[in-house]
Amino acid sequence: MYELGVVYRNVRRADGDVAAKLGALGTATVHEAMGRTGLFKPYMRPIYPGAQASGTAVTVLLHPGDNWMLHVVAEQIRPGDIVVAAVTAECADGYFGDLLATSFKARGARGLVIDAGVRDVRVLAEMQFPVWSKAISAKGTVKATLGSVNVPVVCAGALVTPGDVIVADEDGVVAVPAAWAQKTLASALAREASEGEKRAKLAAGVLGLDMYGMREPLQKAGLKYVD
Amino acid sequence: MYELGVVYRNVRRADGDVAAKLGALGTATVHEAMGRTGLFKPYMRPIYPGAQASGTAVTVLLHPGDNWMLHVVAEQIRPGDIVVAAVTAECADGYFGDLLATSFKARGARGLVIDAGVRDVRVLAEMQFPVWSKAISAKGTVKATLGSVNVPVVCAGALVTPGDVIVADEDGVVAVPAAWAQKTLASALAREASEGEKRAKLAAGVLGLDMYGMREPLQKAGLKYVD
Amino acid sequence: MYELGVVYRNVRRADGDVAAKLGALGTATVHEAMGRTGLFKPYMRPIYPGAQASGTAVTVLLHPGDNWMLHVVAEQIRPGDIVVAAVTAECADGYFGDLLATSFKARGARGLVIDAGVRDVRVLAEMQFPVWSKAISAKGTVKATLGSVNVPVVCAGALVTPGDVIVADEDGVVAVPAAWAQKTLASALAREASEGEKRAKLAAGVLGLDMYGMREPLQKAGLKYVD
Amino acid sequence: MYELGVVYRNVRRADGDVAAKLGALGTATVHEAMGRTGLFKPYMRPIYPGAQASGTAVTVLLHPGDNWMLHVVAEQIRPGDIVVAAVTAECADGYFGDLLATSFKARGARGLVIDAGVRDVRVLAEMQFPVWSKAISAKGTVKATLGSVNVPVVCAGALVTPGDVIVADEDGVVAVPAAWAQKTLASALAREASEGEKRAKLAAGVLGLDMYGMREPLQKAGLKYVD
Amino acid sequence: MYELGVVYRNVRRADGDVAAKLGALGTATVHEAMGRTGLFKPYMRPIYPGAQASGTAVTVLLHPGDNWMLHVVAEQIRPGDIVVAAVTAECADGYFGDLLATSFKARGARGLVIDAGVRDVRVLAEMQFPVWSKAISAKGTVKATLGSVNVPVVCAGALVTPGDVIVADEDGVVAVPAAWAQKTLASALAREASEGEKRAKLAAGVLGLDMYGMREPLQKAGLKYVD
Amino acid sequence: MYELGVVYRNVRRADGDVAAKLGALGTATVHEAMGRTGLFKPYMRPIYPGAQASGTAVTVLLHPGDNWMLHVVAEQIRPGDIVVAAVTAECADGYFGDLLATSFKARGARGLVIDAGVRDVRVLAEMQFPVWSKAISAKGTVKATLGSVNVPVVCAGALVTPGDVIVADEDGVVAVPAAWAQKTLASALAREASEGEKRAKLAAGVLGLDMYGMREPLQKAGLKYVD
Repeated sequence: MYELGVVYRNVRRADGDVAAKLGALGTATVHEAMGRTGLFKPYMRPIYPGAQASGTAVTVLLHPGDNWMLHVVAEQIRPGDIVVAAVTAECADGYFGDLLATSFKARGARGLVIDAGVRDVRVLAEMQFPVWSKAISAKGTVKATLGSVNVPVVCAGALVTPGDVIVADEDGVVAVPAAWAQKTLASALAREASEGEKRAKLAAGVLGLDMYGMREPLQKAGLKYVD
Repeated sequence: MYELGVVYRNVRRADGDVAAKLGALGTATVHEAMGRTGLFKPYMRPIYPGAQASGTAVTVLLHPGDNWMLHVVAEQIRPGDIVVAAVTAECADGYFGDLLATSFKARGARGLVIDAGVRDVRVLAEMQFPVWSKAISAKGTVKATLGSVNVPVVCAGALVTPGDVIVADEDGVVAVPAAWAQKTLASALAREASEGEKRAKLAAGVLGLDMYGMREPLQKAGLKYVD
Repeated sequence: MYELGVVYRNVRRADGDVAAKLGALGTATVHEAMGRTGLFKPYMRPIYPGAQASGTAVTVLLHPGDNWMLHVVAEQIRPGDIVVAAVTAECADGYFGDLLATSFKARGARGLVIDAGVRDVRVLAEMQFPVWSKAISAKGTVKATLGSVNVPVVCAGALVTPGDVIVADEDGVVAVPAAWAQKTLASALAREASEGEKRAKLAAGVLGLDMYGMREPLQKAGLKYVD
Repeated sequence: MYELGVVYRNVRRADGDVAAKLGALGTATVHEAMGRTGLFKPYMRPIYPGAQASGTAVTVLLHPGDNWMLHVVAEQIRPGDIVVAAVTAECADGYFGDLLATSFKARGARGLVIDAGVRDVRVLAEMQFPVWSKAISAKGTVKATLGSVNVPVVCAGALVTPGDVIVADEDGVVAVPAAWAQKTLASALAREASEGEKRAKLAAGVLGLDMYGMREPLQKAGLKYVD
Repeated sequence: MYELGVVYRNVRRADGDVAAKLGALGTATVHEAMGRTGLFKPYMRPIYPGAQASGTAVTVLLHPGDNWMLHVVAEQIRPGDIVVAAVTAECADGYFGDLLATSFKARGARGLVIDAGVRDVRVLAEMQFPVWSKAISAKGTVKATLGSVNVPVVCAGALVTPGDVIVADEDGVVAVPAAWAQKTLASALAREASEGEKRAKLAAGVLGLDMYGMREPLQKAGLKYVD
Repeated sequence: MYELGVVYRNVRRADGDVAAKLGALGTATVHEAMGRTGLFKPYMRPIYPGAQASGTAVTVLLHPGDNWMLHVVAEQIRPGDIVVAAVTAECADGYFGDLLATSFKARGARGLVIDAGVRDVRVLAEMQFPVWSKAISAKGTVKATLGSVNVPVVCAGALVTPGDVIVADEDGVVAVPAAWAQKTLASALAREASEGEKRAKLAAGVLGLDMYGMREPLQKAGLKYVD
């Protein structure tokens, strides 16, 4: 259940430096470091190739076909934020276009994650303002009903609390609670550190079967080879 | 982000009497009384006609294709509870069948709401154990990975906190936060009270246009009649 | 493109008797008699088993999440009509429930076909007010934006002109232009007439291969039998 | 890749008695007894409540929008068979109605499983001719292009070889290779045998946690209880 | 309902110059200028990035899996036309490839909008022949059944009359009736004119809240700020 | 039904040279040459523009959310192979990323076709390791349950036998049985040979109606022209 008609001005944001470092590691590594949680549903896709962003979440709750609150959330953006927009029912309309992107960018937003549609995608790509959405649609919206800003929202199946770290790239979008950001970063860095060596071995033809010591557990599980 | 591997035993449940009264009002009325929030996505459907239930939420977080935690949550059920099951990724497997239903029923559960599949649906209907699910599937599951019990979960797009009132019927499923249950009930009862009179008028041929005083606002909005 | 904010009061309706006779023949026969055209997409399903209706179309164009115009169309219903409701964008909200059904019924409507969601489905079934919809949802709607009444609409992929005959049953929904209704009826009756004899033959074990003389064309097409 | 334009007359069918016994056990039990394989995708649903069937597969490969080969397969049906119909591309048209059902029934068919649509569903329910399909649609089909009969087909993601045992009920559809039918039956019966006792215990309030000895493995996996 | 087996040769096309100007404004602006109507469903996507086209509609009605009429419509293309192809039932087959594109281009077509699939997409991109489709598929089609050319069609939920202006870009596809084209252009130009100034203000940090005077209506609607 | 827990080491692969030649012809031509069979469902899409591959199939059967067997199949890859991965139930998780791609590439794999999700897609594009998948997802997988390697599998609706030729490009994916590869190549080359001349004629403005001699059959079918 959502609280409607409220704008929370003070958000305890995760550390911006931690957010940047998590962003550099990418969604797959961060999501693994969180025990495979925090991921948005895979229907959320970047609107142009190469899109990549990380930052702290300001959230907005919208009604279907109504983008009024996107103007309200714009004022709450601080440099380094990513706007996370949820909708109270399924909607694929184009809530966001080049004018709002210009405004969000001027306020310092790093990107938008919206569980709905966007439009003017060619201009957004030219502006290099990254957006993850579930649809692209020229369908416009009205400005009639109040939602809320900076309340916890469910966006594409993920619970997002204002101030969470958001990491988004071509593999998807993940939310890291502010309180867990530092710990997640440490775990993700450890994970990343071991990857270079693994990659070199695999490139040289070593099999994962040997590198990860899988032959014995596979045999125990009963795997049989037939010539 | 979810906390994994934890079972919270003490849940502050909403008042059972309030839950029953909200259940009698039905999902459409309750959802309206909450400002049109709290609703699960409409893909959640009852597995047999006439299914209806209300109660207090115990929650469980499952992994795709793994129903181990359904056995763990069974122990936490108290009479009057409804189990709300979320999954960390999309999955339509049959997590729940007649044996688990027998166990849940013996513990006093009023029903199950699960963002996945169930099976043995003919037996479940004979038992009159109501279930709302996104799929029906004979596909079985393993018991291998820990989830959690009684943590806040996102189920079919709705945020559910343990102890929430759950109301479910043929129109869908709605969650009412425990702290708002009493207030929501009052509002829903007020709404319901006026419906009988309205129904009588409409049945007598009075138009909603007149009963709700819509003619003037429609005219102001510019509606034109052409003969 | 739709004309917005207009209610056409005078609809040249197809003959009611023809509509009733087409209804008795069913959607499959009528759709065949029209050269396999006129059918709504198969996601349109009756909300209860055994639903069946036929009548003349009054149409209404709605906006997503807004059911205001359903009150406007109610006034335009005449006995024997079926309301056909289209929406300007995808929407699964519950636009219609027991109060509107009471009003529509009092006006003489035979049913509703709506390219969106409905609610109070248990009561609608008890009232035996047949509805074909694409979803069932407790999600309520607002009353804010003008659509139109009795303009041509696209509903579930089918073009419907006010006054068309609508035939709906458990196989789906079909629209027959008023100008073609009589001719379609004649063709459908001819088709129906031959079915009883065919059914008796097939029940006696005669194969369609022989009854329809398919063996030769199949052989010409190159069909080979292998023992 | 499919062989087109061929009808194989001689199918080595699984034992009819084994098929009947597997049918009595139901899809969930049979699918488990096969190591959780053989299941059709869950979008395959019975067209009426309570539908249940088992038998030996005769297969037919159809083209989109073309039901010609359903007349060809009718001749190959023997008492106790279930027709399994695959299509070379996605199609939801109504390939099958009451006339074909009359013919199939006269030939001794126990039911139809079709990866497409069917029509006349009210009559099919009255005839108690069970069908599992992915859609219901009044849309008719042509008779123009050759497919094949009794070749291996992929139906709803499952590979079906002519002569396989097909078990279908409200939980879905499963195919058991003829060569594995006897072994699968033994395994399924063993599984079934233990269920009655389990059900009684669970009904008496015993927890699965204790009955299945799950407490220790859960603790080992790290499950924590918080009061 | 569709008229089948007819080719209308004389289409009253919208003014080509108006079509070009509407094309330059883009689908989002044009769709807004038409009161948010005329839009095709958002599943219609360009087959390569940067695709953009505008022109006058010649329409064609196809049957599922049958592209015969695409050869018939080719003859009716005049320079500046866009072909709009509808199908009588859902179909994702590849109706159109590089040979037909060569022919359409030679006739002066500006592009294709098809409620089905296309293939040879790499060559189409190299040719810079823009296509909007609902699928990409190598699946071929037959040439067996008559549809019609230049009848009104429903394509992706939009009603298209031959001669309409079609505007298509990365945001989607919109149809403007010939009779409304001039008026729509005027309205779209007015809308566009004000955008440059707005963009400059927003880029300078002015908020939409202030620029659009939203603070007062938001307050009236009850919006509350919490510090 | 699938055999589980088995790795077949000896696969009778189609001729590599034939595979290369079929690859050069592309999926649309090859699929036509096979009588329009062998095609994977069109939801299988390349993860980057321009992806193109052909080779001989090694197959792997996976469980939902479990990529263990991808390490097992790596060892069975020989230069010129394409890995075809099926899953026993619907799953969109990210089974495959840059480490496995490095390993597959080192073993000589030409690409991957997987009826599930993949991740690290930016790196995969940089590596130019082509993948066709049904989803992109950062969601990781476990390594817990045995599947099989080099058994016949159903992938995206297509039956694939180890050793089949796989052709994949921007139009989709097609499988050619090893025994039919040579014959299919001959037929595809014949088809291709005639295309250049046709393209030249069409580019010169000749209509398909005339080039293919369609005017007479269209007239016979009853096509009418109206001025």
